[in-house]
Amino acid sequence: MTSTVDASPFVNSPARALVCRGCGTEFPLAAQHACYECFGPLEVAYDPAALKRVTREEIAGGPPNIWRYASLLPAGQDPATRVTLDPGFTPLVPAPALAREVGLRAPLWVKDDSANPTHSFKDRVVSVALTAARALGFDRYACASTGNLANSVAAHAARAGVPSMVFIPSDLEPGKVITTAVYGGDVVAIDGSYDDVNRLCSELTETDEFESTAFVNVNVRPFYAEGSRTLGYEVAEQLGWRLPKQVVIPMASGELLTKIDKAFAELVEFGLVEAPADGWRVFGAQSAGCNPIALALQEGRDDIIPQKPTGIAKSLNIGDPAAGVYALEAVRRSGGWMAYADDEEIRDAIGLLARTTGIFAETAGGTTVAALRKLVAEGRLDPEAETVVYNTGEGLKTLDAVADRVGPTYRVKPSLRAARDAGLLG
Amino acid sequence: MTSTVDASPFVNSPARALVCRGCGTEFPLAAQHACYECFGPLEVAYDPAALKRVTREEIAGGPPNIWRYASLLPAGQDPATRVTLDPGFTPLVPAPALAREVGLRAPLWVKDDSANPTHSFKDRVVSVALTAARALGFDRYACASTGNLANSVAAHAARAGVPSMVFIPSDLEPGKVITTAVYGGDVVAIDGSYDDVNRLCSELTETDEFESTAFVNVNVRPFYAEGSRTLGYEVAEQLGWRLPKQVVIPMASGELLTKIDKAFAELVEFGLVEAPADGWRVFGAQSAGCNPIALALQEGRDDIIPQKPTGIAKSLNIGDPAAGVYALEAVRRSGGWMAYADDEEIRDAIGLLARTTGIFAETAGGTTVAALRKLVAEGRLDPEAETVVYNTGEGLKTLDAVADRVGPTYRVKPSLRAARDAGLLG
Repeated sequence: MTSTVDASPFVNSPARALVCRGCGTEFPLAAQHACYECFGPLEVAYDPAALKRVTREEIAGGPPNIWRYASLLPAGQDPATRVTLDPGFTPLVPAPALAREVGLRAPLWVKDDSANPTHSFKDRVVSVALTAARALGFDRYACASTGNLANSVAAHAARAGVPSMVFIPSDLEPGKVITTAVYGGDVVAIDGSYDDVNRLCSELTETDEFESTAFVNVNVRPFYAEGSRTLGYEVAEQLGWRLPKQVVIPMASGELLTKIDKAFAELVEFGLVEAPADGWRVFGAQSAGCNPIALALQEGRDDIIPQKPTGIAKSLNIGDPAAGVYALEAVRRSGGWMAYADDEEIRDAIGLLARTTGIFAETAGGTTVAALRKLVAEGRLDPEAETVVYNTGEGLKTLDAVADRVGPTYRVKPSLRAARDAGLLG
Repeated sequence: MTSTVDASPFVNSPARALVCRGCGTEFPLAAQHACYECFGPLEVAYDPAALKRVTREEIAGGPPNIWRYASLLPAGQDPATRVTLDPGFTPLVPAPALAREVGLRAPLWVKDDSANPTHSFKDRVVSVALTAARALGFDRYACASTGNLANSVAAHAARAGVPSMVFIPSDLEPGKVITTAVYGGDVVAIDGSYDDVNRLCSELTETDEFESTAFVNVNVRPFYAEGSRTLGYEVAEQLGWRLPKQVVIPMASGELLTKIDKAFAELVEFGLVEAPADGWRVFGAQSAGCNPIALALQEGRDDIIPQKPTGIAKSLNIGDPAAGVYALEAVRRSGGWMAYADDEEIRDAIGLLARTTGIFAETAGGTTVAALRKLVAEGRLDPEAETVVYNTGEGLKTLDAVADRVGPTYRVKPSLRAARDAGLLG
């Protein structure tokens, strides 16, 4: 599967090549993720004319999921070819009470991607990656995961009836392990960090035994990353085809942030939204236990110094972030900033988001809301500018983070007298 | 709040009265759930002319949630009046592999209501109940719950910025307790069964201190129950405006089953679907630990003998089911049947559903899939007839049910050699 395939799997796709983000060398569309010239990461390049033909009406006429943007994605133009749980078009929730609590005086929205089928934004990237993988002829699905990706790959594989093998660090939250294993595929727990898991998966893709296995975030990573653009398109469409002034995005590999920024730029370029007079500003969130991108920004460096991650925001615990330098670039170019939050701040922010919006986020969402609060307090976010904060996962998967903080406020016997004695009647 | 209110909160509603399901006495639309004449339960009665004006086009032009059926609901016609997380329009997932495993040779679909905002079908009934409650002037939201309802009421109240107080049995799954308490409202754990909790809540509604508290499934229950009809409408619309031949539905109070059956009948009556030549058949599912309705059917009785529930399907553990006799009626009238499953069968069915569809259900969903399998094996379900099975909740909330059955299939150190030694390379 490392050989170049002919273009036919992508015949109706606007994608035209893979291009190196480092040196610009182009390669045919295939299962390749690194440049043969400079070892830089590859991304999908499109035929600009094809993308520019897309209209708001065509999108509005599509299904209420990521496939409404099929004309902007590298694979899956024909619905029959999709390997998908039909994720996306998740709620954009107005959050006036949260805005008040963090000190924003302009509209604030939460893009709530916990509403996806396996309750994280990973369903978007997995649907696109596996649809490309099927087109490329792979017959087993795999990934290196901090948890959410494993849930999504295992569930997609089950729906498609294809074998799967997912790789996770062995210290993951039980909720994420069980929610992966229940789908019946292989689950490989690795005694190491996510970065160790990722390295092993890269090695496995080079073996004969894994020749026909698609690792969604390794050998088909360029297709995988493209799915994140839908999180930019949807926000713009849900705002009535306009861009917010500010967005706050969690960072693990940093790729999600770069792709949302790219999606906004594309929408302007394609004429689907007006170019905002003073652009949009992109803000990144990390945890104190894993902040290599945010530290580089705050210290004015261009290089990312790898870390050994710690802390409760496990889904963000990538110590050697593949797209970190691109996230730095996007944030600097847009005039944004990055912040990081410690475990207590993350727990607080999970509660804050839940109380003010009815959305129960996992630790990654808590990290992002905590960063939102800091960025306002530090004057980095303009309190008068419309803001969107991304929640990428579900609180049910990281219950331990809040288990010792919340519980019943009363415990009583089942009688009116007991209720009265407990003070329930005021 | 027990006094009759004037009709103005429901001025654009097709609802015209509350009517006793026992003796047929009518009452004005208000916070009343039992007949003053015979103590029978009340339900919402509609103006038939108003309902019959609804068209497929009007529905298709609505939002992708329950409010697309606002013209068929008792409250919330004006979007600004809604207290809602915008639940509904959840996926209808084709399940050919599950069909094969249970022995069905016709199309099988899973209506997956774990996709709702708080991941159970309760969001539907809570949105309708609280929208009616707000119209009626209540300023605190409450419920008696086996867990999912508590999650939903607490989340709705948080989004709306209204205080809440939810009542649960103290032995609930931790996932359901934390996911309720995180929203910041009061959570009252009662040392007793759900039926004890429900009885206490009924008593509390009669106190002065709870005069302005809406218990969604007690004093505004008639409105609450109406939300379940959307689970019938959606299936018909998603099938291209036709009815399935067979539906399998979990039973706790039994109300969900009666309302889906009612929704199908309404669609035929309103001319929104063709009347099927030989109707549709309704099947009910309970657990062996709480099967009062199924036992009554199987033993040919008209009365429901209350039970003290046991077993892992806690969200179905209502030993004295309020709508049990109506569920019996609907199943008998339609030519359906009921089955119940023990805890091991429920666990097996959770795994079966996950492996074959990518849907991770809570114990209630496992119960329903286990019942589906039994009903086919026993010849009660026609294996040649199109069937829809309802999954009403999310596996992440009842992880303990499968925690000791599933887990990593391999555990290895992060090296290619370790992977090879573990047998990962075949």
